[in-house]
Amino acid sequence: MNPIRTDPLQLDSNGRLKHFLTVEGLSRELLVKIMDTAESFASVTEQTVKKVPLLRGKTVVNLFFENSTRTRTTFELAAKRLSADVLNLNIATSATSKGESLLDTIRNLEAMHVDMFVVRHAESGAAHFIARHVAPHISVINGGDGRHAHPTQAMLDVFTIRKVKGGFSHLKIAIVGDILHSRVARSEIHALNTLGVAEIRVIGPKTLLPTAVETLGVKTFYDLDRGLEDVDVIIMLRLQRERMSGAFIPSEHEYFACFGLTEKRLARAKPDVIVMHPGPINRGVEIDSQVADGPHSVILKQVDHGIAVRMAILSMAMRPDLETPSGERAA
Amino acid sequence: MNPIRTDPLQLDSNGRLKHFLTVEGLSRELLVKIMDTAESFASVTEQTVKKVPLLRGKTVVNLFFENSTRTRTTFELAAKRLSADVLNLNIATSATSKGESLLDTIRNLEAMHVDMFVVRHAESGAAHFIARHVAPHISVINGGDGRHAHPTQAMLDVFTIRKVKGGFSHLKIAIVGDILHSRVARSEIHALNTLGVAEIRVIGPKTLLPTAVETLGVKTFYDLDRGLEDVDVIIMLRLQRERMSGAFIPSEHEYFACFGLTEKRLARAKPDVIVMHPGPINRGVEIDSQVADGPHSVILKQVDHGIAVRMAILSMAMRPDLETPSGERAA
Amino acid sequence: MNPIRTDPLQLDSNGRLKHFLTVEGLSRELLVKIMDTAESFASVTEQTVKKVPLLRGKTVVNLFFENSTRTRTTFELAAKRLSADVLNLNIATSATSKGESLLDTIRNLEAMHVDMFVVRHAESGAAHFIARHVAPHISVINGGDGRHAHPTQAMLDVFTIRKVKGGFSHLKIAIVGDILHSRVARSEIHALNTLGVAEIRVIGPKTLLPTAVETLGVKTFYDLDRGLEDVDVIIMLRLQRERMSGAFIPSEHEYFACFGLTEKRLARAKPDVIVMHPGPINRGVEIDSQVADGPHSVILKQVDHGIAVRMAILSMAMRPDLETPSGERAA
Repeated sequence: MNPIRTDPLQLDSNGRLKHFLTVEGLSRELLVKIMDTAESFASVTEQTVKKVPLLRGKTVVNLFFENSTRTRTTFELAAKRLSADVLNLNIATSATSKGESLLDTIRNLEAMHVDMFVVRHAESGAAHFIARHVAPHISVINGGDGRHAHPTQAMLDVFTIRKVKGGFSHLKIAIVGDILHSRVARSEIHALNTLGVAEIRVIGPKTLLPTAVETLGVKTFYDLDRGLEDVDVIIMLRLQRERMSGAFIPSEHEYFACFGLTEKRLARAKPDVIVMHPGPINRGVEIDSQVADGPHSVILKQVDHGIAVRMAILSMAMRPDLETPSGERAA
Repeated sequence: MNPIRTDPLQLDSNGRLKHFLTVEGLSRELLVKIMDTAESFASVTEQTVKKVPLLRGKTVVNLFFENSTRTRTTFELAAKRLSADVLNLNIATSATSKGESLLDTIRNLEAMHVDMFVVRHAESGAAHFIARHVAPHISVINGGDGRHAHPTQAMLDVFTIRKVKGGFSHLKIAIVGDILHSRVARSEIHALNTLGVAEIRVIGPKTLLPTAVETLGVKTFYDLDRGLEDVDVIIMLRLQRERMSGAFIPSEHEYFACFGLTEKRLARAKPDVIVMHPGPINRGVEIDSQVADGPHSVILKQVDHGIAVRMAILSMAMRPDLETPSGERAA
Repeated sequence: MNPIRTDPLQLDSNGRLKHFLTVEGLSRELLVKIMDTAESFASVTEQTVKKVPLLRGKTVVNLFFENSTRTRTTFELAAKRLSADVLNLNIATSATSKGESLLDTIRNLEAMHVDMFVVRHAESGAAHFIARHVAPHISVINGGDGRHAHPTQAMLDVFTIRKVKGGFSHLKIAIVGDILHSRVARSEIHALNTLGVAEIRVIGPKTLLPTAVETLGVKTFYDLDRGLEDVDVIIMLRLQRERMSGAFIPSEHEYFACFGLTEKRLARAKPDVIVMHPGPINRGVEIDSQVADGPHSVILKQVDHGIAVRMAILSMAMRPDLETPSGERAA
């Protein structure tokens, strides 16, 4: 383990996961450990009784400042399958409307002896802010903050890639679409680099790629056909129509013509390429239905793995007593 | 068992309940079995610890595209008393608002390894549509679809009738009110015919009776006094004011004058008549308070039985391993 | 036990707690018993597995006619830590919107065999009304009704005072702010008088003190500095901005200048004074941040104790079989 690369906020003094805010700075060993732990939970969701008593008596608070049924649901299911109690707080309609500050809301929930906050917020850095101010017994999970990070999504993506492809070092992976606004892309790039993939490509119109994106360790392509050549994995991003002003793309129709993934374009990639998407998909905008529902798609496997990966992160953060310090593990 | 009358979508290859979408086409044996199973659960709700571990580790999703606190609550209580986990999804405020299709929403929830959808939808056929497309391990329960069917309501009604009247073959039953818009009435007529009641009457103004309603095996009355003569059971329907345009009835006042159930009118029925209503009741519109709260009313017993009947349907659909195939049962 | 002072609605024939609607009229013995029971639960919330099986199989309904995330959350956590099932009903968006009466809503929930209603309502007397009409097996807890009472808040306040100060008879306690609109203040005054504090002071502008407030057994001060002299406990009330018209106070700024609690003013009280607040606090309006977060503040302890006190009240009301009649206890 390289202590220089670890975020002191995320790990406890034994190098074990305390908060899960960003993939950036986490060691390869820890990412592997999360995937290994998720592997052990994957079977739980397929049993008749999909429940283990690991977090019985713990309280997980879904603290959602931004509505997201999908993410909230996966965390709720993950927590319940670990036998935790779940409290759903939609803060848009809650005490903050009485003028209470975020910190006062946090302090009050702390005093109720809850054990974890899963935070979703439109502002980048919200989960970090809460983690810096929270009581020592509480873990904070970033469920998506602004354009910054969506680390559990990135972990379920790399877990899916490992399950299908068996590893990372031999892979060329393309991330396609609105990189500029995507917290998912940022977290994926960090995770894939840490896990040592051979090559990461980002593909999109110039207006949707961040300036100096190459400094993240990726190759840039403005042409989808060229970018897809010979790749093993394609990660399509959702075109977030609700965040778009007209300035970024001329029209959805034209976007699909240039950057929509079709079967014809898929043929440029390796024959055993897999297609991923964080969902919800815009059929006919960034991806053709034939591809989304086709044999290369692992989009629904990602959702399946999302539960197991979140169970892993929840249990590692809340039950460090069950873990061996990651420093003792072989890399 | 008559295999011709069974809906292949609702039963598995052994003739056991898989989905519960409509009463139409289900065998008398199966309806009796649901009632018998409900009988065994009726005692659970009266115990100090109102819980059995039958569905521990199962996940029931209340998938409500149309708001209904009452129905959602009864399914939630039924599921929790069977020890299942419950996920409430109000789809009006959920991912579909991001433009995701119904099928994509279903596919995603499936991938999260949920076990059952309870579907409420304003469109007729929504639950059937989902059942036809859902993964093999998932059961679908129709919690009310458009004007089409509300089969769990019908089952709690016939369960209530059996408990009070001891059987069906000797009964004359009147259904009163807005038959045209009522999914409850449609499901009740199918259930009562299958169970072999002596006579079913539908009573209402011409504008609120479907054309050719007699083909369903009922007698039509446009006059409440005549229709109630000598009946054993009166099922009042809710006048759905929110669905009404002015064209169907001249006024609520006039409706009550012609079709409101009063004590005076109740005297036309048999002395031991029972009065039912699916709720919520409009006092002074379709039913007088003296009748709703009087000795003939079994309206609150219906609510009570609603939990037991839903527990029966949930457990039969999700734990077929506990059942003997209905083909092996005596008729 | 003085039977004259007990509210027959709240106690069963053995003098045990049945409903918890108001502190007024409850005996000192009963208040002490609630605090003693809460003491036994305080340790539960600090265990690794924060759960006891006391109310397993019971159903608690949060019946909220007025939105309050904070109060709803504390009752939900208290119920879940006692292993009860919780049903959250936000009645503003529920069946009553279909025109159903409050009593019909109650009757229906009763028929579903629920065990407790926690009622929050903007109208004074709502919880009493429900308690008077509810089925014998159901307990009703007042979670705040209009300007009338908020008895669980009062109990967590006196529990906090007892824990920090060791008793009541030697204490001078000041309640500061908008007494006129405060159900919290009303309930606190009753509890503190019953528990025999030496002196209760209410402090606020004339427009925010009820006429003839002295008949409740308190001393009135219109000057904060004088009112705070030598007190052991200061209970600050929230300035309910959302209920305020401009007529009561000239401006928030001026209010803070006259009645805001600052460190300077705090120096008038005893050196070991504690500062309380029911929350959510308006920093810079009724209380300065230095005081709210300072060494005298027990505001977050109140929140912590709120769970234990509510666990005590829930379990006493729903499991009277575990109790000895309070008449048999020493005063």
